[in-house]
Amino acid sequence: MTGLEFVRPSSADDAAFLDDFVTMSGFGSTDNHGVDRQAATPADGQTRDWFAELLRSNGFTVDMDPIGNVFGLLELVPGAPYILLGSHLDSQPLAGRFDGAYGVLAAAHASLRTREQLAASGAAPTFNLAVVDWFNEEGCRFKPSMMGSGVFTGLLDLEKTLATVDAQGVSVAEALHAINGVGTFTPPPIAAYSEIHIEQGRSMDDANTTIGMVSSTWSARKYEIVVRGEQSHSGATRMKDRRDALLGAAKVIVAVNDLLAHFDDEAVHSSISELYVAPNSPVTVAREVRFLIDIRARESGLLAEAYSHLQAAIARIEAECRVSIDEIGASIWESGPFLESGIELTRSSAELLGYSNDRVLTLAGHDATNMKEIVPTVMLFVPSAADGISHNEREFTSDEDLVAGLNVFTHVVTRLVLGELPESLSILEASAAV
Amino acid sequence: MTGLEFVRPSSADDAAFLDDFVTMSGFGSTDNHGVDRQAATPADGQTRDWFAELLRSNGFTVDMDPIGNVFGLLELVPGAPYILLGSHLDSQPLAGRFDGAYGVLAAAHASLRTREQLAASGAAPTFNLAVVDWFNEEGCRFKPSMMGSGVFTGLLDLEKTLATVDAQGVSVAEALHAINGVGTFTPPPIAAYSEIHIEQGRSMDDANTTIGMVSSTWSARKYEIVVRGEQSHSGATRMKDRRDALLGAAKVIVAVNDLLAHFDDEAVHSSISELYVAPNSPVTVAREVRFLIDIRARESGLLAEAYSHLQAAIARIEAECRVSIDEIGASIWESGPFLESGIELTRSSAELLGYSNDRVLTLAGHDATNMKEIVPTVMLFVPSAADGISHNEREFTSDEDLVAGLNVFTHVVTRLVLGELPESLSILEASAAV
Repeated sequence: MTGLEFVRPSSADDAAFLDDFVTMSGFGSTDNHGVDRQAATPADGQTRDWFAELLRSNGFTVDMDPIGNVFGLLELVPGAPYILLGSHLDSQPLAGRFDGAYGVLAAAHASLRTREQLAASGAAPTFNLAVVDWFNEEGCRFKPSMMGSGVFTGLLDLEKTLATVDAQGVSVAEALHAINGVGTFTPPPIAAYSEIHIEQGRSMDDANTTIGMVSSTWSARKYEIVVRGEQSHSGATRMKDRRDALLGAAKVIVAVNDLLAHFDDEAVHSSISELYVAPNSPVTVAREVRFLIDIRARESGLLAEAYSHLQAAIARIEAECRVSIDEIGASIWESGPFLESGIELTRSSAELLGYSNDRVLTLAGHDATNMKEIVPTVMLFVPSAADGISHNEREFTSDEDLVAGLNVFTHVVTRLVLGELPESLSILEASAAV
Repeated sequence: MTGLEFVRPSSADDAAFLDDFVTMSGFGSTDNHGVDRQAATPADGQTRDWFAELLRSNGFTVDMDPIGNVFGLLELVPGAPYILLGSHLDSQPLAGRFDGAYGVLAAAHASLRTREQLAASGAAPTFNLAVVDWFNEEGCRFKPSMMGSGVFTGLLDLEKTLATVDAQGVSVAEALHAINGVGTFTPPPIAAYSEIHIEQGRSMDDANTTIGMVSSTWSARKYEIVVRGEQSHSGATRMKDRRDALLGAAKVIVAVNDLLAHFDDEAVHSSISELYVAPNSPVTVAREVRFLIDIRARESGLLAEAYSHLQAAIARIEAECRVSIDEIGASIWESGPFLESGIELTRSSAELLGYSNDRVLTLAGHDATNMKEIVPTVMLFVPSAADGISHNEREFTSDEDLVAGLNVFTHVVTRLVLGELPESLSILEASAAV
């Protein structure tokens, strides 16, 4: 680290982080040590308010943008661009307490530790520091997922996103208003983004790796499907006259799972986990079923192959069940590498601090997946224990791994603030050139 | 008909019935000539209020019992038991306008015509007349179906039924209260029950039969199923670690349909039309799916055979998907004949009035299915056109068939009031013996 001897944080610093993590996990807590903090619910609002107060009481300037992202700014170099750190405080229903929330709290603590390090060493920072809680990363209450970072990066339209409604017809705008969760803040120029997250898979835990340098995303495709049949009496209608949308949907769900037989074990993942039936009545054959097919793979080519198998299956099912099956929307994320310089920076920090480390792929989407499209982005993982289960109250990462991650993340953040990521300097040059 | 020359109703009487039918079909009407009047919704309440007023203005005494059945009494022989006529005004979502509602309105008009016939002829009735709108026959908002007649006949417990909640957590008691739909009425002794209904199948229309004498119900079995898996991340979790409740449910739905391959065409009907997924979120493998399997057949033996195939399929699916699949409730309706004397009474009335007629099975359940367990019951069908479709806005019966049904029903009702159904006389003897 240029001109700065890293000072290992005291056990009191680690204890303060873990204490804050326990406090934060109390908001929207569930019976089995999990949390239920769907976006812009009261539980999400309480967590955001607590987090904003934590930032303010530690000298951050706190503000919110029009899509409800909560920013905390720590000015170190007046006028300079910012290193942005963050993740999300919202959760899936009956979810674990680590997913997203760990990264948000780690961002705050890493910033404060970095400020102390710099003050103690007298080293001159190149950039300022900011943290962010991205609104609605999970996408369970309001679709799509990664909403806050999607609007921030320009992938999503603000007005359209604010008008999106949940299953009860409540809009994003109304829900954010109800938790006092909107502002007019325009964030300053960002030189780089960094995020630490739990792996949500088992590869690191299986290999006893403490720090993961996220090297690439998996490819993912999501298809919005509607199966249309016709309502009729589920007891009286002749079987050969039925056009059962739920039977058609069930066959698609089975077919999507059967796709995997065409590929090597675990090379492709597929899922359908959300489904709406109309009229969903016990004595009336379903007229319409809507659901989302989620297929992911290491390589885009495998997804193209899976899609052609899927299309053949759908044509067969349409004929068998006398239903129509339409794809009414599709989202495609090509697999994409993270910056090699960021991976190397993280690796060398982990090495210096004595933690086992390895490159790791992310199968899950993250706000960093959005951010890497617009700024130099560095992503770190800590292991998920319990077979890597996530989106489940059993989700678990040990205190030791949480602290290890925070230590490496702090080291990375300090180096980012010092301008050690070459790609971050282009923003500085651009702003200097103006 | 003993001592009474049947007077063909005037075309003005028929027009009055059809006018009332059009007015009634306006409550909860939908864009495509259907109705949406789920039990105890405002649309159901409006229909009930209109019907009660129709009865009152025609001299009926109207009252409601504690489960919200609406009774209208027409006393002809003070102190005598009653012939009860009825069906249901509630509907499935986006349903046809004939299912149930036709029978309720026909009950009122047949009663009035019978009163006139008796007055004109001077014939002495044996019994009184009452009509009923049975609460919640459809069972879509509140389960089970045939709720009002179920409580009336003692098959369902009143307190437990009143406490049943809909998907929004509203109880039957609260919903009935909201439409002013409860009373304390205790109905008088019933000597016989009769109901006219649309077939909801195509057999009569295919055979050009105008009047169906319902001779037996199909056997039906309904199994409440819960599939339990485990929540996890739908992208990141290894496929071999998943316990996907929705995949398990989909395989059961396909298996229930595949059961039919073991039987002759159309000898067995099966359906799953209502399904609840938890947490029903796009990036979280479902932990639990609940649904109802509905299997019906001409003979109970076929259902026992289907059930053993189903159990084998469920055991296979549990192993394939690493989920548990439990049957948490079952309802069994054995096929049961209607009274031969009632079938013969209807046949001779149809013959006398010159309408084609035939015996017909009912595949659908009806309030008459409950009533036949406690009193002599006579059930009539009129044809369903449009391939017999029902629980659909396309449901259709022609005015000509509606009027034909009303004419025969009136003839049957008059004969019932005159004591021509031998089995009805036992009630009279019982009450005389007291």
